[in-house]
Amino acid sequence: MHALIVHAHPDPNSFNAALTRAASTALYEAGHTVEISDLYAQGFTPVAGRHDFLDTLDAEHFHYQAEQLHAARSSGFAADLTREQARVHTADLLILQFPLWWGGAPAILKGWIDRVLAYGFAYIDGRRFETGLFKGKHALLGVTTGGTAERFSSGGAYGEIDIVLRPIQKLVLRYMGFQTHEPFVAYAAPRVDAASREAYLRQWQAHVVAVAQALPCPAPKEPLQPDAERDWRSRG
Amino acid sequence: MHALIVHAHPDPNSFNAALTRAASTALYEAGHTVEISDLYAQGFTPVAGRHDFLDTLDAEHFHYQAEQLHAARSSGFAADLTREQARVHTADLLILQFPLWWGGAPAILKGWIDRVLAYGFAYIDGRRFETGLFKGKHALLGVTTGGTAERFSSGGAYGEIDIVLRPIQKLVLRYMGFQTHEPFVAYAAPRVDAASREAYLRQWQAHVVAVAQALPCPAPKEPLQPDAERDWRSRG
Repeated sequence: MHALIVHAHPDPNSFNAALTRAASTALYEAGHTVEISDLYAQGFTPVAGRHDFLDTLDAEHFHYQAEQLHAARSSGFAADLTREQARVHTADLLILQFPLWWGGAPAILKGWIDRVLAYGFAYIDGRRFETGLFKGKHALLGVTTGGTAERFSSGGAYGEIDIVLRPIQKLVLRYMGFQTHEPFVAYAAPRVDAASREAYLRQWQAHVVAVAQALPCPAPKEPLQPDAERDWRSRG
Repeated sequence: MHALIVHAHPDPNSFNAALTRAASTALYEAGHTVEISDLYAQGFTPVAGRHDFLDTLDAEHFHYQAEQLHAARSSGFAADLTREQARVHTADLLILQFPLWWGGAPAILKGWIDRVLAYGFAYIDGRRFETGLFKGKHALLGVTTGGTAERFSSGGAYGEIDIVLRPIQKLVLRYMGFQTHEPFVAYAAPRVDAASREAYLRQWQAHVVAVAQALPCPAPKEPLQPDAERDWRSRG
């Protein structure tokens, strides 16, 4: 089983970094392979724009999805996107590791989603959820929060964590056909003591290994064959 | 009443741009003032990092909120953040105009939220929701989607739009004390005909003007006085 960990924290000494190292070590020791996209270390650019593409379909009107589809059909993505797309393509398990900022992923990770998971590569019209292009791949979130578990409970100030994470779990991952697994959430990570952090690291290692071991045979990795008939105008 | 429109679309010819122009025109004609932060036109950087700050509190360990608080107490934010924070500070009504990408804001807008709405400026521990720092300010979302209203209904494939927008409505805006208003959603914007788009523009103008006219007297604009006692470790 091959995993891709997309890691989104600015501080290499952060607890998020410790979680990514712990997951990577545990997966290796369990006999799997791991690749890490450390978005800050790579200087990843999260802003979607014409720099995403090697050439231009329409110089007058920038319709992002039209340019994405053109690039997907002509191998015309910029080098950073081609590299990240190859990593996603070869991964059986995609792990997103990030601190919850304002109820979602840090901008650098949202931009990885916006740019790498491009129309024509990661999704096309008429292929959603059960028929998504990444059917057979698995996805897992590793999240840290400042708030306590109580605040993210149904009666808590922030509401249930499942609702908070639903856009990324459902509208990003399951939309593309990924099978999602129970997210790992290290609540109040900056506030808890060293023993609790150590326990989080062990729990995360056990969780990622359990998910990886339970995976069926890795999905085949044929190159994507875009459908020339598709309607590309699927977003505003 | 003074409004700030934070606009997040890469194409100046987009329907989002038309919505921002329509809202701005309608607010001016109703006697209000409007400032626009066009994030793409400004080349706004969404990546949170040490470049957010003029100096460094801790060179060893980058704790983003600790650096934010230090900057808030020492007028140490980088020029782009100082400019955007001044715009937020003087606005009675904050309007966020964006296309819904992957169930949320484009990365450039998420990064504006991550970086501009900094700890010590936009929120502090113990001041949330009803006691948030921006109590008295109002906020309104203008959103375009590729999906139809049916897909964003309770029985639809994507689920209720209120759930999709909850992280930004509740965990960003209401968390800081903004009073949120009914979001305007132009469903299936890329798919509808010209008459429907024209109708969307008129509906958006009527909505923003109705919200603006209903506002109470603008909130006073004292400079923020950070609380030296606060605990800054509020996020992972």
